[in-house]
Amino acid sequence: MRRKREVAIIGIGQTRVGEHWDKSIKQLAAEAILNAIKDAKVERVDILYVGNALSGELAFQEHLGAAVADYAGLRTIEACKVEAAGASGAAALRLGYLAVAGGLADFVIVCGVEKVTDSPIEKVNSALSLGIDGEYEREMGLSLTALSALMMRRYMHEYGYELKDFANFSVNAHKNAVNNPYAMFRNPITEKAFTEARMVVEPINLLDSAPVADGAAALILCPLDMAKDFNPKPVRVAASVVVTDTLALHERKDLLFLEAAYLSTRRAYETAGIKPNDVDLFELNDSFTIMSALSLEAAGFAGRGEGVKLAMDGEIFIEGRIPISTMGGLKARGNPLGATGVYQVVEAVIQLRHEAGPNQVKDAHWALVQSIGGTGGTVVTHVLEGPD
Amino acid sequence: MRRKREVAIIGIGQTRVGEHWDKSIKQLAAEAILNAIKDAKVERVDILYVGNALSGELAFQEHLGAAVADYAGLRTIEACKVEAAGASGAAALRLGYLAVAGGLADFVIVCGVEKVTDSPIEKVNSALSLGIDGEYEREMGLSLTALSALMMRRYMHEYGYELKDFANFSVNAHKNAVNNPYAMFRNPITEKAFTEARMVVEPINLLDSAPVADGAAALILCPLDMAKDFNPKPVRVAASVVVTDTLALHERKDLLFLEAAYLSTRRAYETAGIKPNDVDLFELNDSFTIMSALSLEAAGFAGRGEGVKLAMDGEIFIEGRIPISTMGGLKARGNPLGATGVYQVVEAVIQLRHEAGPNQVKDAHWALVQSIGGTGGTVVTHVLEGPD
Repeated sequence: MRRKREVAIIGIGQTRVGEHWDKSIKQLAAEAILNAIKDAKVERVDILYVGNALSGELAFQEHLGAAVADYAGLRTIEACKVEAAGASGAAALRLGYLAVAGGLADFVIVCGVEKVTDSPIEKVNSALSLGIDGEYEREMGLSLTALSALMMRRYMHEYGYELKDFANFSVNAHKNAVNNPYAMFRNPITEKAFTEARMVVEPINLLDSAPVADGAAALILCPLDMAKDFNPKPVRVAASVVVTDTLALHERKDLLFLEAAYLSTRRAYETAGIKPNDVDLFELNDSFTIMSALSLEAAGFAGRGEGVKLAMDGEIFIEGRIPISTMGGLKARGNPLGATGVYQVVEAVIQLRHEAGPNQVKDAHWALVQSIGGTGGTVVTHVLEGPD
Repeated sequence: MRRKREVAIIGIGQTRVGEHWDKSIKQLAAEAILNAIKDAKVERVDILYVGNALSGELAFQEHLGAAVADYAGLRTIEACKVEAAGASGAAALRLGYLAVAGGLADFVIVCGVEKVTDSPIEKVNSALSLGIDGEYEREMGLSLTALSALMMRRYMHEYGYELKDFANFSVNAHKNAVNNPYAMFRNPITEKAFTEARMVVEPINLLDSAPVADGAAALILCPLDMAKDFNPKPVRVAASVVVTDTLALHERKDLLFLEAAYLSTRRAYETAGIKPNDVDLFELNDSFTIMSALSLEAAGFAGRGEGVKLAMDGEIFIEGRIPISTMGGLKARGNPLGATGVYQVVEAVIQLRHEAGPNQVKDAHWALVQSIGGTGGTVVTHVLEGPD
């Protein structure tokens, strides 16, 4: 295959994550897009990719690419919607990366958006299950939370951990969200609060799980060699990798090994020419604490059964060995499903630009950003390199 | 921008269009994919793009890229779902084209799939409206059929046509479907049957509108310079263009001008270096006869208000000046929504390979293929060049 162009992120935009009763899905998306365009100061855009998981089910609008394009003042632009469950936003970035790296577009907008508050909570919960295997697991009454609970229970059994050992994942996320004006939950929590929280699906409790919410985030991509004309601090997309796995948990050889996460991070490291030790921060999928633990292991930051220890030892905090959820993660920034992958990248860009304020990871240069659909059916991994 | 690689279609696959009560959405997709892989004789594939409009709403499965990949024996492959209403399948081809033309992938599978018979008809009709503007038009009780009826009524009023003037669009489609073993309706119809058919939304009647159905179709793409190793008759993708417009019909300056279709065909002609006169067949969106008339006009085959004349004069038949719906079109092959765009391309490839049997367009070399989302909110246009 041919040598590809280097791709840079030159603009970012986001809305607050939370319950936007007063805004439609198109309004949220347009707000993030216009913020990103303003940040990048671009005047021309070639393509718009909209990452979204459940707009038809929850916000009553499909055909979202054109709908968002028009509302954001981009009528006639090339656009489509991309779906990969919780990894939809990251999958949209992958498409934008392909278009720019391949030389078929110069400026691409990647927008992730989700609107859940137009639907009652029962419908939201039901729609969330559309991302897991429908024929066997959902039909048997399983949900994403239930599947994650099975994984967590098995992990605890296999390696001898207790619920409180997972506390720091949520404590860290809430602590970091305090300084993120776009985050949904800006309150710190304690280990005690975590262990005593109301149970959802044993052993997963309320403070173990990320809240589903409304939100939109956007990125502007362009070739790296044009980037400095628009932004003094372009962030390079050093690797962009998508790997899929079976949706059905019962069909995996190993319940506690995220094979798609393993494969996609390995390929991402190889493409970027870095090793786990080079990574300064890791924006991972902390939809449930068990997913954080397994992601840390799959990405090579801990051995099997030792991901939780990184949390117990405080190595996941801003000043730790491998900071995660540095702006609050899915847990405390909130999880606007199809938008989440783009939020993660926006936050990594803020870190790599050294604009994260009190949450700044010192000398951050390499960020690993990973989005997961379902329990690992799709894993999208990006490596970002800062300008400094 | 850089010079791109030429892209070829080296494999095609499809299932019969109709009511597949015995097959799931994953089974349909896998059947088409495996047929296409067999046709292309490829052993390695880099990416799978799944075009689908309403799998979450009607087949209770999102996260469709990974779900289909796994079921088709492609676990771990890069995959995602692409949505652009009725143009979803064509939008998936556009993504595949970008990946191969840009040199970031060598072999890409493009699959379009839709399963509607898992849901009751009321739910199907309601879901179909998710592709039109939700905030004003659907909320006011409009549907895609109702919007199309408004366009048709205006067209008849403006240019002085009667219902029977549109008959040949459907007569042609049904005539051509007789020889297509994958078509849903293989019965010829008469002008009399057309004009006397049961009314749906005046002036649109049952034989004016394409039936929504189940189906899947697939394509294998690779660089043109590698194509002959796999297929003696590769079809070149000479142009691939996506243009969007406002979803809301009431916001368009002109109810009877498909601006996105106009722009995308103009750009496609320019990229391919051809003129309307060079086009040997035009697989268009004949979801309603009015859409066929407006598409013919937007693509430059007729002046404003004269698209219908091409039908009245028989110029749209196989032996006419600009054959359309050559294997039955949406009207008689059936319209499996997100799969339709891929079916259209599969049929054009059959024509360009000169394998269309009794429906063969003589000496077919250039095919124009156009998919439309909603009433023209997304228009995807491809120009295909045959091997001969």
